[in-house]
Amino acid sequence: MADKKMVEAITSMDEDFAQWYTDVVKKAELIDYTSVKGCMAFKPAGYAIWELIQQQLDLRFKETGVQNVYLPMFIPESLLQKEKDHVEGFAPEVAWVTYGGGQKLQERMCVRPTSETLFCDYYKSVVHSYRDLPQVCNQWCSVVRWEKETRPFLRSREFLWQEGHTAHASEQEAEERTIQMLNVYADFVEQVLAIPVIKGRKTEKEKFAGATATYTIEALMHDGKALQSGTSHNFGDGFAKAFGIQYTAKDNTLQYVHQTSWGLSTRLIGAIIMVHGDNSGLKLPPKAAPVQVMIIPIQQQKDGVLEAASKLEAEIKRAGIRVKTDTTDKSPGWKFSEQEMRGIPLRIEIGPKDIEAGRCVACRRDNGEKLTFSLEEAASKLPELLEQIHNDMYEAARRHRDEHTYTAATMEEFEKCFTEKSGFVKAMWCGDQACEDLIKEKLAVTSRCMPFEEERISDTCVCCGKPAKKMVYWGKAY
Amino acid sequence: MADKKMVEAITSMDEDFAQWYTDVVKKAELIDYTSVKGCMAFKPAGYAIWELIQQQLDLRFKETGVQNVYLPMFIPESLLQKEKDHVEGFAPEVAWVTYGGGQKLQERMCVRPTSETLFCDYYKSVVHSYRDLPQVCNQWCSVVRWEKETRPFLRSREFLWQEGHTAHASEQEAEERTIQMLNVYADFVEQVLAIPVIKGRKTEKEKFAGATATYTIEALMHDGKALQSGTSHNFGDGFAKAFGIQYTAKDNTLQYVHQTSWGLSTRLIGAIIMVHGDNSGLKLPPKAAPVQVMIIPIQQQKDGVLEAASKLEAEIKRAGIRVKTDTTDKSPGWKFSEQEMRGIPLRIEIGPKDIEAGRCVACRRDNGEKLTFSLEEAASKLPELLEQIHNDMYEAARRHRDEHTYTAATMEEFEKCFTEKSGFVKAMWCGDQACEDLIKEKLAVTSRCMPFEEERISDTCVCCGKPAKKMVYWGKAY
Repeated sequence: MADKKMVEAITSMDEDFAQWYTDVVKKAELIDYTSVKGCMAFKPAGYAIWELIQQQLDLRFKETGVQNVYLPMFIPESLLQKEKDHVEGFAPEVAWVTYGGGQKLQERMCVRPTSETLFCDYYKSVVHSYRDLPQVCNQWCSVVRWEKETRPFLRSREFLWQEGHTAHASEQEAEERTIQMLNVYADFVEQVLAIPVIKGRKTEKEKFAGATATYTIEALMHDGKALQSGTSHNFGDGFAKAFGIQYTAKDNTLQYVHQTSWGLSTRLIGAIIMVHGDNSGLKLPPKAAPVQVMIIPIQQQKDGVLEAASKLEAEIKRAGIRVKTDTTDKSPGWKFSEQEMRGIPLRIEIGPKDIEAGRCVACRRDNGEKLTFSLEEAASKLPELLEQIHNDMYEAARRHRDEHTYTAATMEEFEKCFTEKSGFVKAMWCGDQACEDLIKEKLAVTSRCMPFEEERISDTCVCCGKPAKKMVYWGKAY
Repeated sequence: MADKKMVEAITSMDEDFAQWYTDVVKKAELIDYTSVKGCMAFKPAGYAIWELIQQQLDLRFKETGVQNVYLPMFIPESLLQKEKDHVEGFAPEVAWVTYGGGQKLQERMCVRPTSETLFCDYYKSVVHSYRDLPQVCNQWCSVVRWEKETRPFLRSREFLWQEGHTAHASEQEAEERTIQMLNVYADFVEQVLAIPVIKGRKTEKEKFAGATATYTIEALMHDGKALQSGTSHNFGDGFAKAFGIQYTAKDNTLQYVHQTSWGLSTRLIGAIIMVHGDNSGLKLPPKAAPVQVMIIPIQQQKDGVLEAASKLEAEIKRAGIRVKTDTTDKSPGWKFSEQEMRGIPLRIEIGPKDIEAGRCVACRRDNGEKLTFSLEEAASKLPELLEQIHNDMYEAARRHRDEHTYTAATMEEFEKCFTEKSGFVKAMWCGDQACEDLIKEKLAVTSRCMPFEEERISDTCVCCGKPAKKMVYWGKAY
C-alpha cells in the first residue's frame, strides 16, 4: 500500500486544479521558482523529460531534412523593426540590453523573443541562387518574453523551445513544409506523449505576428481547458520583402523566397501533467519517462533480496528500458508513493516470498493494475507492457477529450457549454472578427482553431446568425 | 586529382596563420559573422560538430552521475555581487538588461557570463541535510561576455558551453570531483578530438575568479600557440559562506558545503581546426565528424555507377558509419576539394572501372593515403580504418607538440625560445607573482599551468634566480 502522507501533501485536483498542478510540479521535483523574478529552475527530473522530448523530436526533424544551427540571442532594435506586424506583436514584451562591457550601447538590443528576424538576416547572407534552396534550419534555445503573470512550464519570462525556420523557392513548397511540420508535431505529441490533438488553422485574430497563416495542434487538459501545444507558420514572402531575401531562379529572374517557422516548447511538459496526472501525482507516458521502471525491494534487509533486485535490474536494462532500483532506507510504502508522485510508469515489487516463488509483481501507474511475472520472463515482457501503457494512456486521454467536446448551434447552447460544462465547443462561425471579439469579451473563450476535419454543426454563425463559413473549436485556454 | 581553385581560395597557413584560420572557417561553412556585433551564427556544418561533442561528453558526464538542469539566463545584480572575487572578475565584461516589458527594471540583471551565483542560489534552496548531498548538476547553454576583439569559435560575445556545478559534504570529495572532471575532459579531448593535452594547475594569477584552485587542460596549436581547452575549479567553501549554503551533518552540526565548477566550450572547435587542419582545409577527427565518409561517384552518368554508390552507402551506413554520397553535377575534382576543405576523414571513389573490378578506392584525408577495398569487404573494413585515422591524427598532433616543447634553464634561453621558436616552454618558477608579471610584460607569454607530471629543469627560477618551487608550462595563448 502506498503511504498516504505524501499524497495528502497535494491538493485534490477536483477541489482546486490550479493548486493541484502547482503541488505536483513541486512534489515531483520538476521545476522551481528562483530569485530571478518570473524565471524558473528546471530541476533534474523536469529537465530529463525535456531531454527525452528533444532527442525524439530532433530525430523526427532530421528525418525530414532539418539541420540544426545556432544564431545569436540578441536582436538589434533596427533588425526587430524591419517587419511591421512582427515588431508590433513582440516589442511590448521584450527585455532590452542597454549596457555591455561597462558602456552604454549605441543601439539597444532585445533578448530574442523568437528569431524570425535573425533567420531572415542569416538567409539574406547565405541564399543567392535556387541552388541554395531550400534552407531548412532549426535551433534549440531559450527565448524571453516579459510576462506579468507566470506559471511553471506554461508561462515564464524565459522558456526553452525549438524554433524551425525555412526558406523555399515557391509558395507551394513553403505551404507543404508548414503542414509537414505540423504533422510531425501532431505525430510526436500523440505517439510519444500519448496526448491526442486537434489539428487546424488559427483565425486571423489568433495568428502569429507577421504570418499569412498559422496552424496549430490543440490539446484538452483534464480541467477542460485547452492548451496550444505547437504551431507552424507560413510567412509567404512578407519577411523576404521586408529583409530583401532574393535568389536567382533557374530562368535567371530575381525572386523572393517563401518562408515558414514552427515551434514547440517546454509548456508541453505542462500538458503532460494536466492531461495524464491524478490525485497521486504525475503520470508520465513511458516514452517521455526518464525512469520507466522502478524496482522496489520488499524486506530488503533479508538475504538475497537486493541481489535478486539487482539481477532483475540488469536484465531489464539489457532489454533497452530505463530502470532504477530504490535501495534507500525508506519504507516500501513511502517508496511506492514517491514512485507514484514522480509518475514512473511501472513499479516492480520483489520480496523474499516472490523470490521463493520465482516471480515479481508489476504495478501500472496509469491504472493501478497488478501483474505477476516469472523472474525469467519479466524483462522480456516489459517492452510490450510499456507499449500497452502508452496506448491505454492515449485512449484514456482521447476518451476524456471526446467526452468533453460539445457542439452548439445557438448562442444559448454555446453559453451553456461554457457556464455549465468545460471543454472544447464546436460551433459555426461567419468568419467575421467582430463575432470572435464579442465571444471573447462575453465568455472569456477564444477560437482555438478551424480544424482540418470540418463538420457542419449548423448553417449559421453561432454568434450573429449570418451564414456560416467555418467550423471552429472554441475553448478557455492556458 | 583535387581541383586547385578551391584550395587557392585559402591563404597558406605558413604565410599567415590567422588568415588561414579565418579562410578555413568560412570555406568549410562552419560559422559566420552576423549583424549582431561580436556574435556569430553557427552554420549547420559547425553546429553538427558541437552536437557530436555534446552527445559524447554528456554520455561521459552521466556515467559519473551528472544530472542536467537549466537555470535562468539572467542574474540580478545583487546576486552577482555576493561573492567579492567573483564579481570583480566578471562585472566589467557583462551585458546588462535594464528594461523589460516596456518598463525600467527596479534592479538591473546581467546575462549570465557563468552561473556560479545562480547555482549557489539554487543549492541554497535544495540542500538541507547530508542526505541532499552531493549535488552534481550540469547545464548546456550559452553565456555572454562583452569582448572587444572577437574571433570565430575562440572569442565572441556569446558562446556555447556546458557548465557543471557541484556541492559536496567534504573538502576532499570536492577536490576529488574537481580532478575527476578534469580527467573526463582530458580523456574526451584525446579520445574523441584526437588532441593531446597537458593536465595541470593554474597559478594564483591565472585561476578563476572565486576559486581556491583551478585545473586546466592545455593544447598546442599548429602555430605554436597554446589553447586552454577546459577548466575545472575547486571553490572550497568560499561561495557557500557568501551565499549561506549549509547542511545538517550526520552528527547534527551545521556545515558549509564545498563546491566545484567545470566548463568546456565551442572554442574546442577552434582547437580542432588549429591542431589538425592543413593547406587543403579542415581535418576532422572521425569521432567529431558529422560526415565520416563521403562517396564520390566517378563518371556518374554511366550505367550502374550511382546504383553501385548507393548500394555501398547503404552497407556503410549499416556498419554504423555516418556516410553520404555526393551526387551533385559538380566535377569529381571539385567534389574532392570540397570533401578535403570540409575535413571529411575519408572519401571513397567509385567509377565504372572500379565496379567492373569489384572494388573501390578510399582516400584518407589525414595523410592522403589511398587504399583499395573489394566492394563486398569495404563496409566491414571502415570502422577499423576510421579508428586508425583517429590514432594517427592523435600521434601526429602529439609529435608536433613534443617537437615544439622546449626547456629553458636561464632567462636568456627562455627569451630565445619565444623569439626564435614558438611552442610550449618548460621552465622553473619561484612561485612569486612578480616573476610571472615580469615575464608577461616582457614577452607577452603567460603561465599555462603547473603540470601534474613535473620535471626538474633547473634549481632556480628562470626569471629571478631564486630557488625554484614549481615547473611551469609557458606559452603565447589564444
